[in-house]
Amino acid sequence: MIEVKIISIGDELLIGNTLNTNSSWLSKELTNIGLTVTSSVMIPDDKERIVHSLNSSKESIIITTGGLGPTKDDITKKVISNYLDSELVTDENQLERVKNYFKSKNRQLKQSHFDQALKPIISESLNNNVGTAPGIYTEFRDKVYINLPGVPSEMKDIFENEVKNKLRHYLKSNSNDYFIYKTIYTTGLPESELAERIEHLDDQYSQVKFAYLPSSSGVKIRLGILNSEIENNEQNLFKTLRNKINELIGSYVIEENNSLFEATIELLIERNSTVSVAESCTGGGLGKQFTEKSGSSAYFEGGVITYSNKSKMKLLNISKETLDNFGAVSEQTAKEMAINCQQIFNTNYSISITGIAGPNGGSPEKPVGTIFISVYNGEKTFVEQLNLSKNNRESNREYSIQKAISLLYRTIKQSL
Amino acid sequence: MIEVKIISIGDELLIGNTLNTNSSWLSKELTNIGLTVTSSVMIPDDKERIVHSLNSSKESIIITTGGLGPTKDDITKKVISNYLDSELVTDENQLERVKNYFKSKNRQLKQSHFDQALKPIISESLNNNVGTAPGIYTEFRDKVYINLPGVPSEMKDIFENEVKNKLRHYLKSNSNDYFIYKTIYTTGLPESELAERIEHLDDQYSQVKFAYLPSSSGVKIRLGILNSEIENNEQNLFKTLRNKINELIGSYVIEENNSLFEATIELLIERNSTVSVAESCTGGGLGKQFTEKSGSSAYFEGGVITYSNKSKMKLLNISKETLDNFGAVSEQTAKEMAINCQQIFNTNYSISITGIAGPNGGSPEKPVGTIFISVYNGEKTFVEQLNLSKNNRESNREYSIQKAISLLYRTIKQSL
Repeated sequence: MIEVKIISIGDELLIGNTLNTNSSWLSKELTNIGLTVTSSVMIPDDKERIVHSLNSSKESIIITTGGLGPTKDDITKKVISNYLDSELVTDENQLERVKNYFKSKNRQLKQSHFDQALKPIISESLNNNVGTAPGIYTEFRDKVYINLPGVPSEMKDIFENEVKNKLRHYLKSNSNDYFIYKTIYTTGLPESELAERIEHLDDQYSQVKFAYLPSSSGVKIRLGILNSEIENNEQNLFKTLRNKINELIGSYVIEENNSLFEATIELLIERNSTVSVAESCTGGGLGKQFTEKSGSSAYFEGGVITYSNKSKMKLLNISKETLDNFGAVSEQTAKEMAINCQQIFNTNYSISITGIAGPNGGSPEKPVGTIFISVYNGEKTFVEQLNLSKNNRESNREYSIQKAISLLYRTIKQSL
Repeated sequence: MIEVKIISIGDELLIGNTLNTNSSWLSKELTNIGLTVTSSVMIPDDKERIVHSLNSSKESIIITTGGLGPTKDDITKKVISNYLDSELVTDENQLERVKNYFKSKNRQLKQSHFDQALKPIISESLNNNVGTAPGIYTEFRDKVYINLPGVPSEMKDIFENEVKNKLRHYLKSNSNDYFIYKTIYTTGLPESELAERIEHLDDQYSQVKFAYLPSSSGVKIRLGILNSEIENNEQNLFKTLRNKINELIGSYVIEENNSLFEATIELLIERNSTVSVAESCTGGGLGKQFTEKSGSSAYFEGGVITYSNKSKMKLLNISKETLDNFGAVSEQTAKEMAINCQQIFNTNYSISITGIAGPNGGSPEKPVGTIFISVYNGEKTFVEQLNLSKNNRESNREYSIQKAISLLYRTIKQSL
């Protein structure tokens, strides 16, 4: 097992002004490669703290983020060069890259920008394709030190294009014994039911580590297999397991290596299909999700946010009878919302959500967390009632959105 | 200066399956009290790691989150009791609370739930109003140990109702010398301009630490004053500064202690006013924001997501001429969207957003990041053009939403 420590450097992290998304992203990537993150720390831009954190690392790989920029509080590079007892020298290739970067943006280079091309003499620079601060890679006394910028897009670019392969290689040469992970995404089946249906595989394949990772869009099944097993079996074990899982819960499995949303978008694009939304309690969150990516106009036409009953009647022609007899939060209203939405936008599919997100607004018959989602495919409506127990508006809304996408996904898939 | 270390405990944090929002929330709260967070670490549910992390703390206050639940991987309490060399005993008050909690939820108590009422004999339990795991507070050998659950709502509840005052008290008795912070929220003025207009105050009041914290909704001005200065001046210094800042940039200052969104909602409620939205590139994100809180039907009527030109014409009656002559991303279209939206929903105010969020879809005349926002108050439209330079769809959309709320806020405020 090769252990990794992540050190996130930046004053802004410790006053709570910035959420540390880098650490979580890196942890996921590193785990998937087969490395084990054993600690992740946030410290200020402070020399002593950085050195203390480096010194107290038992891990063999240390990754820092932050403090590589051109301003005076960016001290990571200096501290690292001191720590490695290795002077800073200009990397001519990087200097060229920095110059080109500024040229392409029509910006003037300052002295501080020249410093961006410096690296400890024993280190290797890592190209940054989206910014000016290169990463730094150093092998020193049996340990690997990797320094990345704190801007998430730059950190991710360098990690994906430069660091990932180096770490894979390091792992192969330094460990006989590490786990390789594959993730199978599922949607629409609760964790307990899912575990019940496939737990005998867990017993049968004792060499495989099963983990169930629930999220609002569904449960991810993470399979961990020792690298030695993989090599002997030429990936057969993963394939065998995937097939078995498909036999057991196939209709809930999402296409390989795809999140629910990505898979849904792919299906829509493949089939040249469009979608529209009619939202009540989620207030636009479903539309926001569908327009998350550039180019979403290929499949997303638009939507209505009918938060009040008045707007449900005026914009969606929901009949007063339906609202009076069944209420705004009902199967009937959800269905009418979906059907009428489809007719307004003339899309292949439409989705509606109406419910009580809480924490107030519940009643004995319809407690907080009662939410109806409906999908209409131009011929038939599909409805699901959610009974979300959590007294948490934010998570109830997020769950409803993901469940609605899940229902759309399964509706399209079934009609294939 | 009293230093704090935050230790977030949980395997899920280190495989990247859960984003650590607790640490960031706690850091902000602790900083506002006047404490200094000097490190924040994430470690797995592992005895050795927890002990190592406790041992290597130089800080005088140590706050842990996570590992207090009833399942077998929740080991924090056992480890702490060992570390403090203090046996676990049942806290009868807490046992009563746990029993009542389960009774109120109609759930059966298991043995593991009885363990929730255990605490180290030298420690004090901290009431949890939203879950079953109490927090634990211990003063031991000149240090304070606070153990909180990992579920954010439970952690926040205990911190706000039980921990905050204890820490304030601790700070007063143990330090002569700490900063008290006040934050002034502003909106609509870029950081550089804001700094330029008030930087002479920074020089004039050398005893005050000025910090500018930019976010998508505006710039927060954080003023830090030593507690001794405060006591001598009976809060006068904060008041003086607030008045001076009001004189200099008053129209951009948000009501005291309120975020932009909160302040806007308060204005709408006070004036018994309603709002509707017409969104293009934000795809529903503005509506989602307006419905974030329970009770939002008091001020939010609904909206349309007109992502395609077709839907802009059909739902919002945007004229073909406007779209042909000026384009969907233009001042004219933004204005028409706002006016027609107000007429559909019959609200006091309406907001529209149309733009190119990127990363694709730009042109030489209208590059990525060109976004128009408009507010209509039933009489007049106000429009702002944003030229967001970032090639980042997510942040461009978030900025547009916040700028739109900012324009609404200033529109309502000016008409007061």
